[in-house]
Amino acid sequence: MKMQPAAIALLSLMAIQSAHAEETTSMTGMLMLTNEDVRKVAPALEAYTQSRLLGDVWKRPDLAPRDRSIVTLAALIARNQTIEMPFHFNLALDNGVKPREISEIITHLAFYAGWGNAMSAIRVAKDVFAARHVGVDQLPAVSITPLPLNEAAEAQRSKAVQEQFGSSFPRMAQYTTDVLFRDLWLRPDLASRDRSLVTVSALIANGQTAVGPTSSRQCLLRRMFLQSVLANRH
Amino acid sequence: MKMQPAAIALLSLMAIQSAHAEETTSMTGMLMLTNEDVRKVAPALEAYTQSRLLGDVWKRPDLAPRDRSIVTLAALIARNQTIEMPFHFNLALDNGVKPREISEIITHLAFYAGWGNAMSAIRVAKDVFAARHVGVDQLPAVSITPLPLNEAAEAQRSKAVQEQFGSSFPRMAQYTTDVLFRDLWLRPDLASRDRSLVTVSALIANGQTAVGPTSSRQCLLRRMFLQSVLANRH
Amino acid sequence: MKMQPAAIALLSLMAIQSAHAEETTSMTGMLMLTNEDVRKVAPALEAYTQSRLLGDVWKRPDLAPRDRSIVTLAALIARNQTIEMPFHFNLALDNGVKPREISEIITHLAFYAGWGNAMSAIRVAKDVFAARHVGVDQLPAVSITPLPLNEAAEAQRSKAVQEQFGSSFPRMAQYTTDVLFRDLWLRPDLASRDRSLVTVSALIANGQTAVGPTSSRQCLLRRMFLQSVLANRH
Repeated sequence: MKMQPAAIALLSLMAIQSAHAEETTSMTGMLMLTNEDVRKVAPALEAYTQSRLLGDVWKRPDLAPRDRSIVTLAALIARNQTIEMPFHFNLALDNGVKPREISEIITHLAFYAGWGNAMSAIRVAKDVFAARHVGVDQLPAVSITPLPLNEAAEAQRSKAVQEQFGSSFPRMAQYTTDVLFRDLWLRPDLASRDRSLVTVSALIANGQTAVGPTSSRQCLLRRMFLQSVLANRH
Repeated sequence: MKMQPAAIALLSLMAIQSAHAEETTSMTGMLMLTNEDVRKVAPALEAYTQSRLLGDVWKRPDLAPRDRSIVTLAALIARNQTIEMPFHFNLALDNGVKPREISEIITHLAFYAGWGNAMSAIRVAKDVFAARHVGVDQLPAVSITPLPLNEAAEAQRSKAVQEQFGSSFPRMAQYTTDVLFRDLWLRPDLASRDRSLVTVSALIANGQTAVGPTSSRQCLLRRMFLQSVLANRH
Repeated sequence: MKMQPAAIALLSLMAIQSAHAEETTSMTGMLMLTNEDVRKVAPALEAYTQSRLLGDVWKRPDLAPRDRSIVTLAALIARNQTIEMPFHFNLALDNGVKPREISEIITHLAFYAGWGNAMSAIRVAKDVFAARHVGVDQLPAVSITPLPLNEAAEAQRSKAVQEQFGSSFPRMAQYTTDVLFRDLWLRPDLASRDRSLVTVSALIANGQTAVGPTSSRQCLLRRMFLQSVLANRH
């Protein structure tokens, strides 16, 4: 019985976000919990963290550690769970997520999880980047050469959105096209497949199941996500 | 193609909350991000903030800057996004929102977004008020002369709530009447129209679309909101 | 007109979480608001806190103060409302919630409200425990003798979950059985009835009404909750 790709993302519902670090104070001046801190309140939770989360879920083979880090960062940012961020920004970098990808993940989630959540993440990330000497040359430029647009898929998405709320909220539909799908989603420093991973993870983490596909004609996003995850299985 | 009023509120879904300030430390002792801080992690997000958010959405003519500040404060409080609060409490005051209105917005959201969220907002607001020398004389009194009640509309609302869950949760229905619609909503230091703006913004920001009207008979709140927004267009 | 038990839990929607303390700085180094702080921003909110929340809702006889503390802690943790936690961890202990029960509540909510929320709660709880000299001997052990399992009820739950998403997400269904209902829920330091109280409160606080029973065959959780609350009325 193989695990379905989408189920991997859904696991974030069950074991959303994760562990804690060994140091007591983070570089950001925010308290980071030690294992010992956790044991002083909830020894069982510390044990679950080691056995079920780090020792089991994180080691499942159908989603790479790099992708689990992306999913976890998206969930942490979407729910504004800052206490776990210093550990997970560092773990993500250790798992091969590039600084430019983290930069784009945060930018992406400003639109999908709220500007305030993105700013909280930046507050933590800037100290992690500084401690690891991540310079501006490792970050995405403002002006980029956009990825090629799949015009057929975009026409389909745009039509679906237009039918869904274009007559009631025409400018909203227009922003969705201009700012999101013809701008943000085409920025090259985060793969489209990873943007889907980030978007779906954030929507799940916030329970926003009404966003995105609601009928067979509107399932572009979900299909894009599943296809890209499948295409990248290993 | 004119933008619909409700769409303006809905924009908070897309560009929820906003910018950041120029200083590094706020009066509240909480870190405020500078533009430079943001650029060190996400130069593109800093550019979007300037161009798309401050330079575009905030300048759309169909919702006044004062009302955008109210919508933004409601969303920040509803989602407990404290990092943006120092900037936006100040911007709201600059945009003409009165201290007594901010006081009532926070009080109102204690009921609609949770007591804990209201207390987080107070933690920030008290330092903003102190820095701007806002005295108790500029705040609403505890005892007030209530606004006149539209008895017909209230009877309709009360009847809808009674039908919806009055038989299962009679005391809940009673509190809704006694504490909310015959007390909180009648406090005179925030206009009914602005309470609707705050309520709808908070519900949208938290994805609580099931709260409020669900049938044609229950659309009082939505209608009240749209009518009052329309009545105040400029 | 008696209040229904479930309505008591639902009240957390209206008056989610509560009051504030008298001291300005908490043991955790996090700012705690004084009544005076609240009055400096929102005198009316301070009055509502005293009259409607502490003086009315908290004194309703159909839910014991101990249970209101459990419901409130669950809601605070589920929504990551840290500012009220120092006050409410202390009030819960004063109301008879045992340290071992608080430990299990936090562990339980790691699975139902996210690991990051549990870690934020631990950050506060560890200082409250330290100040009250709560030692490891008062906390649940990692290895425990599980409560007896109601095999018939578990078979019914497992079958419902299997039908609901077992074919699409088989491993998710398996984790639900292995980690939650045959492990976490059987830990003896928090009564099953209290786990239901915690779970339902957290789901309501986060608006996750889609989690749990959706048909007559799946109403085990809800029934368990109502029955256990009824069984413990006083």
